[in-house]
Amino acid sequence: MHFASDNWAGAHPKIAENLSRHASGFASAYGTSTLDKALEQTFNEIFEREVAVFFVGTGTAANSLAQASIARPGGVTLAHRGAHIIEDEGGAPEFLTGARLQAVDGPIGRMNIDNLEAAVKGFRSGDVHAGRPMGVSITQSTEIGTLYELGEIAAVAALCRKNGLPLHMDGARFANALVSLGCSPADMTWRQGVDILSFGGTKNGCWCAEALVFMDPAKAQDMPFIRKRSAQLFSKSRFIAAQFEAYFAGGLWLDLARHANAMAARLANHITASSSLRLAWQPRANEVFAILAEETAAALHANNAIFYDWKPPHSERHLVGTNETLIRLVTSYATSAEEIDRFGRLIA
Amino acid sequence: MHFASDNWAGAHPKIAENLSRHASGFASAYGTSTLDKALEQTFNEIFEREVAVFFVGTGTAANSLAQASIARPGGVTLAHRGAHIIEDEGGAPEFLTGARLQAVDGPIGRMNIDNLEAAVKGFRSGDVHAGRPMGVSITQSTEIGTLYELGEIAAVAALCRKNGLPLHMDGARFANALVSLGCSPADMTWRQGVDILSFGGTKNGCWCAEALVFMDPAKAQDMPFIRKRSAQLFSKSRFIAAQFEAYFAGGLWLDLARHANAMAARLANHITASSSLRLAWQPRANEVFAILAEETAAALHANNAIFYDWKPPHSERHLVGTNETLIRLVTSYATSAEEIDRFGRLIA
Amino acid sequence: MHFASDNWAGAHPKIAENLSRHASGFASAYGTSTLDKALEQTFNEIFEREVAVFFVGTGTAANSLAQASIARPGGVTLAHRGAHIIEDEGGAPEFLTGARLQAVDGPIGRMNIDNLEAAVKGFRSGDVHAGRPMGVSITQSTEIGTLYELGEIAAVAALCRKNGLPLHMDGARFANALVSLGCSPADMTWRQGVDILSFGGTKNGCWCAEALVFMDPAKAQDMPFIRKRSAQLFSKSRFIAAQFEAYFAGGLWLDLARHANAMAARLANHITASSSLRLAWQPRANEVFAILAEETAAALHANNAIFYDWKPPHSERHLVGTNETLIRLVTSYATSAEEIDRFGRLIA
Amino acid sequence: MHFASDNWAGAHPKIAENLSRHASGFASAYGTSTLDKALEQTFNEIFEREVAVFFVGTGTAANSLAQASIARPGGVTLAHRGAHIIEDEGGAPEFLTGARLQAVDGPIGRMNIDNLEAAVKGFRSGDVHAGRPMGVSITQSTEIGTLYELGEIAAVAALCRKNGLPLHMDGARFANALVSLGCSPADMTWRQGVDILSFGGTKNGCWCAEALVFMDPAKAQDMPFIRKRSAQLFSKSRFIAAQFEAYFAGGLWLDLARHANAMAARLANHITASSSLRLAWQPRANEVFAILAEETAAALHANNAIFYDWKPPHSERHLVGTNETLIRLVTSYATSAEEIDRFGRLIA
Repeated sequence: MHFASDNWAGAHPKIAENLSRHASGFASAYGTSTLDKALEQTFNEIFEREVAVFFVGTGTAANSLAQASIARPGGVTLAHRGAHIIEDEGGAPEFLTGARLQAVDGPIGRMNIDNLEAAVKGFRSGDVHAGRPMGVSITQSTEIGTLYELGEIAAVAALCRKNGLPLHMDGARFANALVSLGCSPADMTWRQGVDILSFGGTKNGCWCAEALVFMDPAKAQDMPFIRKRSAQLFSKSRFIAAQFEAYFAGGLWLDLARHANAMAARLANHITASSSLRLAWQPRANEVFAILAEETAAALHANNAIFYDWKPPHSERHLVGTNETLIRLVTSYATSAEEIDRFGRLIA
Repeated sequence: MHFASDNWAGAHPKIAENLSRHASGFASAYGTSTLDKALEQTFNEIFEREVAVFFVGTGTAANSLAQASIARPGGVTLAHRGAHIIEDEGGAPEFLTGARLQAVDGPIGRMNIDNLEAAVKGFRSGDVHAGRPMGVSITQSTEIGTLYELGEIAAVAALCRKNGLPLHMDGARFANALVSLGCSPADMTWRQGVDILSFGGTKNGCWCAEALVFMDPAKAQDMPFIRKRSAQLFSKSRFIAAQFEAYFAGGLWLDLARHANAMAARLANHITASSSLRLAWQPRANEVFAILAEETAAALHANNAIFYDWKPPHSERHLVGTNETLIRLVTSYATSAEEIDRFGRLIA
Repeated sequence: MHFASDNWAGAHPKIAENLSRHASGFASAYGTSTLDKALEQTFNEIFEREVAVFFVGTGTAANSLAQASIARPGGVTLAHRGAHIIEDEGGAPEFLTGARLQAVDGPIGRMNIDNLEAAVKGFRSGDVHAGRPMGVSITQSTEIGTLYELGEIAAVAALCRKNGLPLHMDGARFANALVSLGCSPADMTWRQGVDILSFGGTKNGCWCAEALVFMDPAKAQDMPFIRKRSAQLFSKSRFIAAQFEAYFAGGLWLDLARHANAMAARLANHITASSSLRLAWQPRANEVFAILAEETAAALHANNAIFYDWKPPHSERHLVGTNETLIRLVTSYATSAEEIDRFGRLIA
Repeated sequence: MHFASDNWAGAHPKIAENLSRHASGFASAYGTSTLDKALEQTFNEIFEREVAVFFVGTGTAANSLAQASIARPGGVTLAHRGAHIIEDEGGAPEFLTGARLQAVDGPIGRMNIDNLEAAVKGFRSGDVHAGRPMGVSITQSTEIGTLYELGEIAAVAALCRKNGLPLHMDGARFANALVSLGCSPADMTWRQGVDILSFGGTKNGCWCAEALVFMDPAKAQDMPFIRKRSAQLFSKSRFIAAQFEAYFAGGLWLDLARHANAMAARLANHITASSSLRLAWQPRANEVFAILAEETAAALHANNAIFYDWKPPHSERHLVGTNETLIRLVTSYATSAEEIDRFGRLIA
């Protein structure tokens, strides 16, 4: 029962097959091949507009280079306190930009819009001591398996526009959010006002396929140099393109995300039905958080359920009682209903 | 006739197959999987000692993080004027370290040992204005297809030891150099005094497999953090491990390099036999440099020979006459004898 | 009535005079002059041990270079949420180190020791995603005019020692804290376990005289290079040395701090006696914080009282009621009793 | 006989006096005081246009922040091989920008315009591997006491304009160059096409007064944040303003530079008359370079002549024979004719 992370899964067979299919033959390097160019066109189609796409190797890179593209001296990006770019990138966004991140609070993994507005207003124009805001970053789906509704994204974007701040979306689990909301990529991004997207493929069935997508190509003019100096320009870049080709073909990416989400919902049902666990909050994508007695968690571990105990988010730490623990259960394209039901029997 | 670069080839079938073989199943992420650990052991065996290995995504990353591991305030790394870290990394080594690089001249792609010694001695102890040396970097095989002999590596290493400087080897084409010299990996590295190696697999048949190898694991204690903050820690790291597994199995890597080198030698023979081209210098690995009339180069291009005109190295610029050009022809595991001979007929 | 900041004052006449006295004559540059060396010796005497001293130009530089001296990849320094290095350096500590700062809460400007311990323990060994602690920084006197007692410094230091973390003290108002506690420089620093001190002279009567003091010179070996690459090595460094010479001569620095503190106490007395203002917390050095109606603050401004309205510290924001404001009143060596009493009459 | 450097002198009495004059009284901090603003106006007058002025503490800072203001990802600034920003800033320009410097050769301390053009053309548009030019920097007067004629500056500027590159002038010895050419500050800068100037006052009689001058204020919008994050924003900034006030009053700065240059010319005359030394090249400002037998240099040192043996510039290294040495003799506002003549008698 593998619920540790969606990055514990490997690669979907169709993605592995496509890599094999493209293994032979010569192609120009550094993102200039026919396949690379074809996939750039696919991104245009998926987003229903001409976008600028940059393949990179890791989600950390996508998020950090997004920040680098908007960095300015004294700059500060605002993000949720529990955001990956604040808590889990090993300082890469700061190291690769020289800029700072500032935490904004809000329940269930999302910035409260009033807190965000207060944070933006907290910077006085020209105050070099405090610095100045340079952007806002949201995560969709969030670190804790929740979602921003489209209207909420639009509200954040409106605040950004008003203050001249670009809006970045960390979409490490973009597909999971998309199928959960049942909207289009364009709807979840630029139609609401998102400027830059970290488009993640790795957690949803690729080996290593991340893309930085600029909704306005004019804003990406420095990116080729930013990517190179950050050691993220791959010579045989088509190996990323080939993954994305299979990922998008026939809507595979959406099918994989739907499966992962369905498995999460099935898991949530088991938890709701159990008297020994309770859902910490309603899962909206492929991550389920539950609260249970520490000894119950230990017993589950002992019965080969693999998952992480999770540090309670700042806004939700009151939910976890004494001798209780919060656990995170992540599903993926590779999760089977059988696994879920085995876990269900264990907690019944 | 593809001679543009060894990174225009794709991935060897055995490497693609192995990726498919490892695509299913769950494995812990971020370099902690059983396969990752097994490959670390393989590196120990290949280098006949316990080494510290860090998988990264690009050669730029391997070289830059090697520099980061030895960086110190005011530090300067000495390398050949034509070295990749000086000319072709888009400033990544400087950007990711805050340190500087200083060019040392020498014929056919190798630092002259006297020039290197003079450069080291040029730094006076404690002179904060000029800075201080922090390391030396050599490329094996060099940017222009030549080699340092083992004794020459030892001489550079002796100078390094005497001055307390770590010695880095950029081994983007490590295997090509190895089979050319006919020695062991240990012989070409730590037995001569190399401390840190950028071990490249990509150019020799992998999709994307680079490793940073520290001969003394004690010198690599900061590397996990350096790698993460530089966005080079891959979640599904086993996709790199799987490539290396196939790469090393049955000595595939050496076979591929031998093939590439043999194709280069075959190409050199054609050039020697031709009256319209001449070898710029003797090729020792899988890169052949030739000098020819500009119009001849144009004619070759027109006949579907794909290669780059090359800026003559500083020390060899006198070799190229008026109306002549220097061209680079690179062979790889995927080059066929038929291609070579077709080119041979073209220049006969 | 100038209470905006102690950096609105100029330079004490004795300091200006000493600069004039040293204006003539030749002296070797970049911190090597006889006067520079003599002042280094004075620092040894003042701290009752051999220390390593580095003159720099600004408090931002002292604090940032202190961080640079302890920086390591993935590193995070812990400081109070309201600390100058977190809120008021324009990102310089992060920019000049590549490392991060993490806020720790605590009442009246001081880190709560339990919060600090929890923050340190929050980092799991080897967790590259979260990074690792690299140091702790305290401010003495604090940003809001309070103090760490000697025993409290010792407690922070003990926690640091236990976790292998160097302890930095931001002493922009070192002298004010010192005379308030009535202890020696050694008592307030290394005897309690402080490793690195930003020793500020500027706010207490110098033009521009800041020093970075390493209690263990062996820990300062990289500092000459760190200072130079950060553009903080002054050619005519003796102009800083000359300021410090006069600053220390006859205990001037302590006299100036005693005066500033006495003026603050006198001001606090006026506020206590007034019915229209109340002390936000007890002042311990040369900064007085008061809470009053917004309209009262406006009236004071209109009567030529110069001070800043202050953003309430996170832990004290509940103290300020609706339609109230928090104000900061800073005294200095140049503040006169007459000014204080004029303000006193205004609020009576 | 002090010829080691112009930064071995102290401060001119009038500058020290003015500091004393401004020592009392309160003034707003961080460059906002009346005096600061008045001096900004003075700079406008001196440059005959509205400029943006930023006071900083060191020449290293002025040069590095100039680079930071024009930095872009992958960027490279071109400067003479012997330029201070390349050889003598301890890596500060690279550290504070993340960008690189590239050396251009040329005789007697000045870039050869053809070499410069070749260097610019050496960057192919969009080549992320090599990076891209981001600016050009010239030094006036040069590191070795020579000058760019106005027409030569204009030629460099024309090349810059044509290639969209800002032109920076390192004016650590700006005044010395100015009085030597006998032109106005506007003539030597923006009228020829200089965009950014490091205006040095320290070497010419100030304690510590450097200014970064942007000929087009619109290009300086990020500078307040760049200066702060680089720890170069001085709280009691008026101590720099006060130096500049005295420096400019009654043309003192020009008088001091004329004196220093005259002393250099007098020294050159002695050398020309001597049979034991020869001028390395014709001095144009306040630095005289001479070639002499090593034993003669030793004898001069033994007779209390203080100067540095100098590493021969790359383009002039052929001038220095076996057993000979190149020496640098620097004069300043504080050099006396008596000192010069004493040296003259020594070498007669």
